[in-house]
Amino acid sequence: MITLFKNARILTMKSSEIFSGELAVKDNKIFYVGEHYDGEVPDHVIDCEQNLLMPGFKNAHAHTAMVFARSCADDLPLHDWLYKTIFPMEEKFEDGDIYNLTKLGILEYLTSGITAAFDMYFRVPEIVKASEELGFRSVCLATSSAEPISLLKERFETLNKPDALCSYVLGIHAEYTTEEERIKDVIKLAHELKAPIFLHIGETEAEVKGCVERHGKTPVKYLDSLGFFDYGGGGFHCNFFTDEEVEIFKKHNCYIVTCPCSNLKLASGIAPLYKYQKAGLTIAIGTDGAGSNNSLDMFKEMYLVSALQKVTNHDPSVMDGFDVLKMATVNGAKALGLNDSDVLDVGKNADIIMIDLKNPAMQPINNIAKNIVYSGSKDCVKMTMINGKVLYYNHEFFVDQDVNEIIEKANEITKRLKT
Amino acid sequence: MITLFKNARILTMKSSEIFSGELAVKDNKIFYVGEHYDGEVPDHVIDCEQNLLMPGFKNAHAHTAMVFARSCADDLPLHDWLYKTIFPMEEKFEDGDIYNLTKLGILEYLTSGITAAFDMYFRVPEIVKASEELGFRSVCLATSSAEPISLLKERFETLNKPDALCSYVLGIHAEYTTEEERIKDVIKLAHELKAPIFLHIGETEAEVKGCVERHGKTPVKYLDSLGFFDYGGGGFHCNFFTDEEVEIFKKHNCYIVTCPCSNLKLASGIAPLYKYQKAGLTIAIGTDGAGSNNSLDMFKEMYLVSALQKVTNHDPSVMDGFDVLKMATVNGAKALGLNDSDVLDVGKNADIIMIDLKNPAMQPINNIAKNIVYSGSKDCVKMTMINGKVLYYNHEFFVDQDVNEIIEKANEITKRLKT
Repeated sequence: MITLFKNARILTMKSSEIFSGELAVKDNKIFYVGEHYDGEVPDHVIDCEQNLLMPGFKNAHAHTAMVFARSCADDLPLHDWLYKTIFPMEEKFEDGDIYNLTKLGILEYLTSGITAAFDMYFRVPEIVKASEELGFRSVCLATSSAEPISLLKERFETLNKPDALCSYVLGIHAEYTTEEERIKDVIKLAHELKAPIFLHIGETEAEVKGCVERHGKTPVKYLDSLGFFDYGGGGFHCNFFTDEEVEIFKKHNCYIVTCPCSNLKLASGIAPLYKYQKAGLTIAIGTDGAGSNNSLDMFKEMYLVSALQKVTNHDPSVMDGFDVLKMATVNGAKALGLNDSDVLDVGKNADIIMIDLKNPAMQPINNIAKNIVYSGSKDCVKMTMINGKVLYYNHEFFVDQDVNEIIEKANEITKRLKT
Repeated sequence: MITLFKNARILTMKSSEIFSGELAVKDNKIFYVGEHYDGEVPDHVIDCEQNLLMPGFKNAHAHTAMVFARSCADDLPLHDWLYKTIFPMEEKFEDGDIYNLTKLGILEYLTSGITAAFDMYFRVPEIVKASEELGFRSVCLATSSAEPISLLKERFETLNKPDALCSYVLGIHAEYTTEEERIKDVIKLAHELKAPIFLHIGETEAEVKGCVERHGKTPVKYLDSLGFFDYGGGGFHCNFFTDEEVEIFKKHNCYIVTCPCSNLKLASGIAPLYKYQKAGLTIAIGTDGAGSNNSLDMFKEMYLVSALQKVTNHDPSVMDGFDVLKMATVNGAKALGLNDSDVLDVGKNADIIMIDLKNPAMQPINNIAKNIVYSGSKDCVKMTMINGKVLYYNHEFFVDQDVNEIIEKANEITKRLKT
């Protein structure tokens, strides 16, 4: 099955160059990228009308099923948000809830050109089921301390197969929510598997202070002393790192995953990303969950990754738009371990989006890449293709399930969780 | 000509209540809002499918034609942005350029549910022509010191007619760019006409410092000493106001027009809106021009109006989402002098938008108003109606001109301005 995209502008993200050309997809892989395709006759031809093909965005930090909490706990103090709203609702989860809620979150990802998410949430099999049924690429992250280490190992080995749509990465929720014994057990498994570990870290000042009180060290330093980052990994949020912690992340090639919208809305803080960038750290971008953000929108995040650094560094020239686009695509893919979904190239996964350059916000054509970061919105996403399948085109979903049913089910569940 | 909206959720913005009902438009006015319409037979019925009708957004600070500068001067220091890119391009304007560029900006407004803009730019007749041809509501603002005061008076009297689509407000560009003699002349005219005056003010720290050096007073205080705000008016940006200046604005019922995206991207600062809100000032929201923002997107602005106050005040409970929605609609209408376009009510202008509640970002339905502010994007705008005419529906434009021609023309002009 060959799909040929004709009459396209193409941004492979291997460089900042944009050229006019063609791209062919065979089954789930990119088969040709160049000026003119003259191989096997395609089964399907899509005229891009000079719109832009580029790699899909990678949401490097997500709690997809948390769409239930969207706009049901806004404008509350942090403690009330978490303990009076989010936690009590999560306690009421029944079998199938996460499966159903994840599907709604995936639909939203498709509207934002997000082709993969690093999904930190409970009940991994339900996330995998939802993702596979809709054709979405989820990288699931171990998160519950209640799960035996043997289960983590089993999932790691069974889910991480070549060419599988879903994969699995080791993690803990956070230092402040995890017993030291558990942390050590996860580290032991990571060492055995030579695998990276990810976690929420440096999100709030209170978290850092608490860790220093508990362990006499800031979180990254404490975990590093246990060998946590020996095989890489990274942190979600990373708003409050000491210079020493930046160095530890650098030494272990760990990823900074920043979530600017969520951090603003929960009043956690603004990550010093320009400092991290100058130190040579690799930065990826996540939306966090819809309970705190509240949207799952890579365009909003990209804008803020750049604009917040400009204002906090009092310098509009820092954090160049193209660097941010790289964070949202290439760096995200690396952080998620999706090395075959990073750029548009022959043999890579066909995780491709089309940006509508006829949208007024993309005009006039001065600098397409910067337009996407500084002026883009979900409204500019013309197509989202994952693993060779067009799942969203011209504001319509092409998934194998009834979209209205997904929405109804999510509302039913949310209603139950709230009562 | 009667258009009936059936099966709608309706948020009039007279209160935060949302009810299921019907709304009828007769010519350019709202004719009925309530549970069930049983008046004259409508010419046209629109089934809203339980989507939301609400007043359109009012863009309270814009330089619409500046779309030419979108993404052609990003990531530059402020001085280079203004003096090496923007000003030299503006010097090359020819007759018709602003007319053509304004049309592209208007198309973008329609995609964001913006039904009126407070447009501070040169060549008012070209802005009026573009607006009237496309059916958009522009409130033009005197901006050029080169125009004789008699012309300002003439425009004020000829443009401000009942039921006209475009109107005219007195203004100066800014204190630091305007000779004192000119400022005094505009004030004299404002006193004669009993009219408000608007200007850029308190945008950067350098501007405030310069004013203190020139006049021994901060900008608001200096201008107030000349009688600038005697008939109201307001300021664009307002990032750096002293407590005394807040009091002056309060005394004269002046409007704060905040432009958070632009202020971040140019590294100008973050307005202390929560302080202004507590002081009882009325806040409206603007996008500024596409040269600095770079998008003309009320959703991005609304999010930031709230989220930036939460993070800078270290309190996620400040700047409630509904208050922000009011700023973007009702307060904006007041600032623009559009008292007939503020809410959905009988006799008001039919400046109405429909929000697509089936969009995944609007689901589940927990709190619709907060969803719009915290999770909305242009992608959620299903319809934009101005003055009784549907100009945008389901991502398609219904304007009386060829959209592709508008885009081509804007590119041609931009190319010339750049060379």
